[in-house]
Parts: sequence; C-alpha cells; structure tokens
Amino acid sequence: MSHTRTLAAFLARLDYADLPPAVVARTEDLFLDWLGSALASQGAHPIPLFERYAATMGPVDGPATMLVNGRGTSAYFAALVNGASSHLVEQDDLHNSSVLHPATVVFPAVLAAAQDLGKSGAELLLAAVAGYEAGIRIGEFLGRSHYRIFHTTATVGTLAAAVAVGKLMGFDEENFINLLGTAGTQAAGLWEFLRDAADSKQLHTAKAAADGLLAAYLTRDGLTGARNILEGEQGMAAGMSSDAQPQCLSDRLGSRWALFETSFKFHASCRHTHPAADALQALMQRERLQHQQIARVVTRVHQGAIDVLGRVTVPQSVHQAKFSMGTVLGLIAVHGKAGLPEFQQLALTDPAVSEFRGKVLMQLDAEVDCAYPRRWLGRVEVHTTEGRVLHGAIDSPKGDPDNTLSRAELEDKFRRLLAFAGVLNSDQAGILIARVWGLRNALNLKGLMENIDE
Amino acid sequence: MSHTRTLAAFLARLDYADLPPAVVARTEDLFLDWLGSALASQGAHPIPLFERYAATMGPVDGPATMLVNGRGTSAYFAALVNGASSHLVEQDDLHNSSVLHPATVVFPAVLAAAQDLGKSGAELLLAAVAGYEAGIRIGEFLGRSHYRIFHTTATVGTLAAAVAVGKLMGFDEENFINLLGTAGTQAAGLWEFLRDAADSKQLHTAKAAADGLLAAYLTRDGLTGARNILEGEQGMAAGMSSDAQPQCLSDRLGSRWALFETSFKFHASCRHTHPAADALQALMQRERLQHQQIARVVTRVHQGAIDVLGRVTVPQSVHQAKFSMGTVLGLIAVHGKAGLPEFQQLALTDPAVSEFRGKVLMQLDAEVDCAYPRRWLGRVEVHTTEGRVLHGAIDSPKGDPDNTLSRAELEDKFRRLLAFAGVLNSDQAGILIARVWGLRNALNLKGLMENIDE
Repeated sequence: MSHTRTLAAFLARLDYADLPPAVVARTEDLFLDWLGSALASQGAHPIPLFERYAATMGPVDGPATMLVNGRGTSAYFAALVNGASSHLVEQDDLHNSSVLHPATVVFPAVLAAAQDLGKSGAELLLAAVAGYEAGIRIGEFLGRSHYRIFHTTATVGTLAAAVAVGKLMGFDEENFINLLGTAGTQAAGLWEFLRDAADSKQLHTAKAAADGLLAAYLTRDGLTGARNILEGEQGMAAGMSSDAQPQCLSDRLGSRWALFETSFKFHASCRHTHPAADALQALMQRERLQHQQIARVVTRVHQGAIDVLGRVTVPQSVHQAKFSMGTVLGLIAVHGKAGLPEFQQLALTDPAVSEFRGKVLMQLDAEVDCAYPRRWLGRVEVHTTEGRVLHGAIDSPKGDPDNTLSRAELEDKFRRLLAFAGVLNSDQAGILIARVWGLRNALNLKGLMENIDE
Repeated sequence: MSHTRTLAAFLARLDYADLPPAVVARTEDLFLDWLGSALASQGAHPIPLFERYAATMGPVDGPATMLVNGRGTSAYFAALVNGASSHLVEQDDLHNSSVLHPATVVFPAVLAAAQDLGKSGAELLLAAVAGYEAGIRIGEFLGRSHYRIFHTTATVGTLAAAVAVGKLMGFDEENFINLLGTAGTQAAGLWEFLRDAADSKQLHTAKAAADGLLAAYLTRDGLTGARNILEGEQGMAAGMSSDAQPQCLSDRLGSRWALFETSFKFHASCRHTHPAADALQALMQRERLQHQQIARVVTRVHQGAIDVLGRVTVPQSVHQAKFSMGTVLGLIAVHGKAGLPEFQQLALTDPAVSEFRGKVLMQLDAEVDCAYPRRWLGRVEVHTTEGRVLHGAIDSPKGDPDNTLSRAELEDKFRRLLAFAGVLNSDQAGILIARVWGLRNALNLKGLMENIDE
C-alpha cells in the first residue's frame, strides 16, 4: 500500500471519539488564534481588493461569512477572503518541520464549508484536525528543496484545506484519493514575490483555502483526480521537490498529533526572525544591556532564514520590515517588543531602529542549520561598544510547542490584535472568546459572528 | 531590460491598428473553432459538475454566459465553466513548439471579461492576440523539461488568460509586470492524472482561464505581483523548468505572429495518425480508388507514432480507436472522414472499417523520423487488389499552419461538432458563424449567444 493510500485510509476512518481531549482543546486554541488574525486585517491592503472581487463575482448574500465585513457570501468567496485576511498580520500559527502555516488555509475553508453545509462545531474541529495532520505530513514529505522555491503554505495549503473540507463532507478513502489528486494538481505558489514585497502572500493563502474547498465540492459531486498525485512520476514531488520522503506521509498516524507541534506567533514578524529575537532579548535582559551599548550583532541562523530574509536590506514597507532581521532585532533592542503596533509605528521611521538594523548580520551556523526545521535554535553573538563579545542562546522561541501560549495568553493576544485593528470592543471580544471555547458543543457555525453587540 | 519587461512593454503598446488584417481574420477563425469545441461538450462528464459548482458558489445571474447552458453568471464562473467545456472533445487548437492549447484558456477568459466589461469585438480580438503571443512565448521559454511533468496548457495557460484580460482592460507596462507575477504564482497543473484517465484535464483549463481572469481583476484594482516571476531566482523557471530560454520571451515581438503557427485539429484522432490519414486520402482521390480495391496499406511513420499507436491492435473503446492507425485509415478509406460522429458511430461497429483495419501496417521511415517533430510527414504505400503499388505523400497534415483550414472547412467542422453534440440546429449554427465572422465589428459581446432562435 502506498503511503498516500495509508494517509487516505487514516483520514477516512478518523473519528471525533479518537481525538484526545487535549487535541480538541488545542484545536479550539488554534481557531481563536486564527480568528484574531483574520479580524485584525480589516481595511488593510490588499484585503479590500479580495472583498471587492467577492462582491463582483460572487452572490449578493450567502450562508458563509466574510470575517472582515460580516457579510454573507458563498462558501467559495468566504474561503477566499478569509484566507487572504488571516495571513495578513503575520500572526497566524506555524508548524516548524513542515514550514506550513496550517490555520490560515485550513480554518477559512472549513469554516466556510461548515456554515454552508450546516455542520456542528465538533464536526468542524474533527475536520480541522484532519487538515492539520494531512497538511503537515505532506509538507514534511515535500521537504526543504520544495520550500526553497515554493511557498509551502500555498502549495501544501491547498491540500490541507481540501482534506479538511473533505472530512467535513464525510469522505471515504476513495474520495480522499481523488480529492488529493484534484487539490494537488492545483497546488501553486512561488517565493519570487518576496523580493518585491508584492501582495502574493495573501493571494496564496486565499487561493489555497478557496481551491482546496473547490476541490472538495467537485470531488463530492464526482470529479476524479490522479490517484498518486504526491508520489507519482509526474506528481508533486516529481515536479516540485528533489528530497521528498514518502514515509513522512504516513508517519505515526493516529498516535503522533502533529497539530500539537504548531507554534503560536508571538512577535509580528517572519518566524525565521523569532529565535534570534528571543535570544537577543534574553541576552540583553541577562546583561542589562541598552541598545546604544551594542556595536554589532551576528545572528547564527539556518540556511532557510538566509534564503527568506537575505533579500531584504532596507525595507520599503511595513510588510517587508517583518522579513528584515535587522529591523526585528532593532525593535526588540530599542523598544523591547516587535508586535503589530511597533511595526506600524516604528519599524520604518524610528532612527534608532534603522541604526540598529545596520549593525545586524546573519551567518549560517552548522548546529542551528542541522537542528532546523525540527528545532528553531536562537543563537546571537553580540559585540558591545566596549569590545566585549557576549553570547545569547534560546532553544525554543516563545510560542513553540514546548514554550507554548496559555489560554490566558491567547486571549490576551486576541484582544491585542483586535485593539490594534480597532475592530470590536472588549465585550464583543469576550463574547467571541467564549464562543470559541465552546466550539466543541456548538450545534452549527452559522451564528459565529452574529449578535455580538449585546 | 529583462526579457519579461520587453514582453510587458510590447503587450502594453500593442494596438489594434498594428494587427495585420490576416491576424485579425485568423483570430476570428480560432474563435469559431473554439466556440464549436465548447458548445459540443454539453452534457458530457465532467462539465455538469462545473455548472453545478457555478450554480452553488456564483450569483443566480450575471453579464457573462456559460456556453453549455446559455445561462448568465459572473465573469469568473463563465471563464471556469467555458474553460472546462472547450477542452473536452479534444478538438481545440494547438501550438506545436510551445505545446500549448491557447484557445481553451484565452477565449473563455477574454469572452467572459468582455461581456462583463462591455468591450467590443475588436477589443476582444486584440486582447486574444496578446494572450496568444504572450502564452506561446512563455511556453517556449519554459521548454520541454517543463512539459515532461507540467501540463503547459494549465500552467502557462494561466498567464495567457491573464494577459488577454489585462489587455482588454487596457493595462500599461507596469500593470502587465504585476499581472504576470500574480498569474505566474498561481500556475499549476501536473500530468500525473493522465495515467488514471482522471478528470483533471478539464479542471486544468477551467482553472487556468478563471485564475488568469482573477489575476487581471485583482491587478486592475491594485494587487501587486512579483516583478520577475518568469526569470527570477524563485520564479517559474527556477521551480518548474531545467532548460528555460529567456530570449524566447521576447522573440520577434510584433513581427512574428505566433498565433499563425497554431494548428487546427481536423481528424478527431490522435495527431500521430493525421499525416498517414491525409496521405491516404490524397492518394485515393488522385487515383479514384475505392476502399474495396485496397489490399494493403503500409504507413511509413516516425518512431513516436509506433510508440504511441503500436499498442492498440483491436480497439476496445471509442477513445482507444483514436489511437488505432488501422481504424483511422479505415474510417478515411470507407467513409472519407474521421470526425467525432464517425468515431462514435462507426469506429467499433462498421465491419468494413474493421476489415480495413486488418490491412494496415506501420513501418519506421528514416526520412519521416528525421523530420519529426518539426515536420509531420505523411507517407503511405498502397497495394491494390489488382497488384499495383501506389505511393501517397503529404508534407503538412491538414490543419497545420501551412495547410490550414479554410473558412468553409472551419464552418463545416463547427457544424459537425454541433450536430455531433446535438446542440443547436443548422440555422442557429449559421447565425453564430455569421456573428463570429463579424466579430471585429461587434459593438459588444453581450448578445453573442442570444436570439439565435429566429
């Protein structure tokens, strides 16, 4: 039996009763974290472009909700708009070893379909787990060579979203085989946009969520797909990877819950900057250093960080600043935080941050590179103006599985995201939080965003 | 200046007045040929699945027409459904050196957008030319290594459709740069489905047309894309080709009209059978031979024909009959035609065709093999029942650029496609033909499919 078939069989038989209570609870955590990211994008470019597209091309109303404007539409356009929305503020979750942001592709698709099909909260949670477990393994399968050129959250995200919606529809093994074929042959997304700070990142997650949903609806109605899209001679690995490992697809299905391995984002920047940011912050606190005392910071990083961050020298936009190691470390050093408000208000304009940025270098480090992507080690070497050389190290950046956020911290992050975006008040935020913590008991998702003005 | 920028500049400045009259006329030819293919798919799996998807996810009505059912919808869903439709009967055009089927991706997108935006026939023709010229060059740029794994009509088709709609919208050079970025990062489509005879071929053209259109609408509204999606270090060539040739992108822009190099399909069989079929037909007409007078036919072919056709001895399905040299020559010899109706009604059941099939052999020919794939030479040796040995030869199969179809032949093909599918009557077909021959003077495309019952 191929690894793809083993995965499809697992997805077909996975039952809500199989989910450990901690998995259910963590999925609710991930949902809240995602919801905050989606709502916080309201009004920010390019989200209104997607709203306008939905208004032009979609129905005037429908069963599924666009989170940023509360309006109803069809499931397809809700997945599209919410997929764009939830990746904008770069605060959504990340699975380390697959380098996949699962929430921003899985939840837009599965929420839209659940609203469309009248499914319950428990059914949504089960479907989301299926999407996470499949997507993470497919990302691991395609490997690092894939991520060098392709935006895994876009490519693999299409399959993760498709699997989630397929599970919501009660697909059997044969359905899942066809679904993977139809989703996999639509998988696209190149990193090239990054060097121009272009808007493709939100397009990628929008399309992954919407294309995955499309794949599931067409498969339900009888569209067939390639039976071996992942491992086949003209499939995804053949075309888009040079180090694919098929056994990753069926790795410990049902005993390893890969969903637990996702990291919550703490800083509002590209995740590749977080280990160094935490290491620098720990060192500065330990040594009681001020940013003026620092002459030079050498961050010892993995190759992936250089590939993604190496293109940005002087950031031209707030978004690009999130991919500038120097800017992120500058915010940490000068302001102690690299959250959304700091990026918006200080990243491009504060002279102290710009000055610090010029002091930061990246260097490939064999130990860090070897541990990656299982572990994201933070290693910095700080040269002080007095000539001292200090070393900072952290082994798990904040938000990582073994340094995760509590529900209180997640609620705080949710409220801060909403406050930053100026959407909803504290009472309304509280209502939504309570609804998410009760997700497993929700009869349906239609009213998720309704009646929050009481 | 990069080749991509040169291409974008050309697309921006291309004006209707620049088009030689023959290019305008040929574009109308291609449009009619495409329209017949789209209409002929009515009711055939999997087209109703796409119609159902459009009904579920799209508006109840709209300015753009789904050809197979005549209903209105938004431009996005019209592009999607028509993109699926026009590739189903395998009678749409092909550009040889790019291995791109341009019509099935360019026309669905550009017609839907023209109906949506109230553009004229001349504007549509200009836009289609832009889509063809760009798409063919991008296909040649990505090369044979791309085609080995990726379905070029799906991947490159996304960019061709996008360019056509962008031209319709009057994009400038900067718009086109962004558009290519946004379309290219969505480019997807793997050949893996072929070994399972899965439904992805129509999904690919549907998505290419629709995604290309989406790219143009979002670009118009301000979405930015990678500036070097084709040639960049993390762009399409880097990720999806190993023999890309950048100079192909700007090859003789404005003097070479690549659109002229497309082939119309004449016989409804595998293209490897066409040279021999045409050579046999020419010989039988020249010698006024009847099929009963033929004892044996030796077709002298290239190795590729033997590889692809050599497996089929007695065909078991209509689809397989299209890959049987003996069956195709039998239909030509006995019925004078090898179109869709002949395959459907006669290929498997007519005893005269079966008998003729047994008289046909294939033999490798050094001259024919050497000329391939630049030229598809047809060489047959016919042994009559009276003991004569006759030789037939054609140097360009019917439908190829230097042996193209006349308007009368295109009209005949159009009528036969419609009759085969049982859609529209002869008068209605005549009305549509007249409208297409008047395309350059049409004020708009809204009524293309309306009022044809008079």
